[in-house]
Amino acid sequence: MDKFSVGKHISGKFNEELDLIRNKALTMGGLVEKQLSDALKAIENSDTELANRVLENDYKINQMELEIDEACTRIIAKRQPTASDLRLVLAIIKTISDLERIGDEAERIAHVAKASFSKDQEHLLVSLENLGQQVLSMLRQVLDAFARMDQESALLVHQQDANADRQYEALTRQLMTYMMEDSRSIPKIMDVMWSARSLERIGDRCQNISEYIIYFVQGKDVRHTSQESMENTVRGRTQS
Amino acid sequence: MDKFSVGKHISGKFNEELDLIRNKALTMGGLVEKQLSDALKAIENSDTELANRVLENDYKINQMELEIDEACTRIIAKRQPTASDLRLVLAIIKTISDLERIGDEAERIAHVAKASFSKDQEHLLVSLENLGQQVLSMLRQVLDAFARMDQESALLVHQQDANADRQYEALTRQLMTYMMEDSRSIPKIMDVMWSARSLERIGDRCQNISEYIIYFVQGKDVRHTSQESMENTVRGRTQS
Repeated sequence: MDKFSVGKHISGKFNEELDLIRNKALTMGGLVEKQLSDALKAIENSDTELANRVLENDYKINQMELEIDEACTRIIAKRQPTASDLRLVLAIIKTISDLERIGDEAERIAHVAKASFSKDQEHLLVSLENLGQQVLSMLRQVLDAFARMDQESALLVHQQDANADRQYEALTRQLMTYMMEDSRSIPKIMDVMWSARSLERIGDRCQNISEYIIYFVQGKDVRHTSQESMENTVRGRTQS
Repeated sequence: MDKFSVGKHISGKFNEELDLIRNKALTMGGLVEKQLSDALKAIENSDTELANRVLENDYKINQMELEIDEACTRIIAKRQPTASDLRLVLAIIKTISDLERIGDEAERIAHVAKASFSKDQEHLLVSLENLGQQVLSMLRQVLDAFARMDQESALLVHQQDANADRQYEALTRQLMTYMMEDSRSIPKIMDVMWSARSLERIGDRCQNISEYIIYFVQGKDVRHTSQESMENTVRGRTQS
């Protein structure tokens, strides 16, 4: 099931370099996951200090993106990888770009966590929790799939996004109802709305990462294809 | 000023291949520009037919992204480019990803153009026009800068985004005031709000493309740096 083949390469030094960028991408993923998890906790507990920490830490993610991207470019120039080695490097370049943007969304959520909500507005934040936990779980799963280059798990994450989208839409409708009922709360509700949107976008980015994993394993670009066609690709079935 | 050096390469065939992917990226850019321009026109004239055409055409952009991405991967594997050739290919890979997402935002705007607005709600759409025209102009300029790999023009586009952000924020505040004044219009105003957000994001993506152009010309990654530092890079000044 796990077709991940790094480690079988002829040149030991080249292997080491590939392992290094892969591990760095995973470290970056761990940091992004922590940022999202902290941003959600900060919302849940109205924890301004934690929200500030998320805002302060974003530069680390940006730095990692630049560093890994440069290392990937160096490997391409120096090692001239082909086939699955090249696919691995390209999958990493794309993954870290999505991870960096997930970091940006976590930063946006942390900003909202810093805004003060009155007692009777706090229920708004609670409504974000379900969606937040679901998207955080998708991020964890896709990073885990990336670590093992496990396309089956990647496919599962991809399929979960439809559920996250449904939750997001229900939440949006609910928030609009609140706005209509209490117009003075509109600016606060808009903050929550933006956070919900950020979460929805993170779900999309987890889907992107799933697609890069399948691309690496199968050598086939499954972006912009149907769920069915993607499933066929992963399961190795011929497509009509 | 224009340091674009493709065409000086030793292998004629390799040059042709580089020119081909560059031209394809430009064709894709032209299509994305048309999609955004049409989506804005559809909003302006409540033109459902034009909006539908935008929605129908999005698949072409997706196809082009896949096609160009594959061609880029093939060039890396076959030609093993280094230095500025490699930077060009990587800049194209990243640019088409941003272009595809600008296409998605144009699609979102086209969806709003299809929603029916009553006579007294039409002024909401008018408020989008200024921001829309500014962002469309940024997209045109950055595609032009990309065609000539002109880092000075790229820098100018990058600097314009602050202005687009200010307009976006003013518009958001105005829309929130409308929501508070007329709660029945909230769902419609939210549609306009999402379109404004889409436009703001397109501005960000134009900034990204500017950064790839400067990366290609200077061989220096200017993402996540200050405007001042970016200006110093472009102008070739030593940074403290």
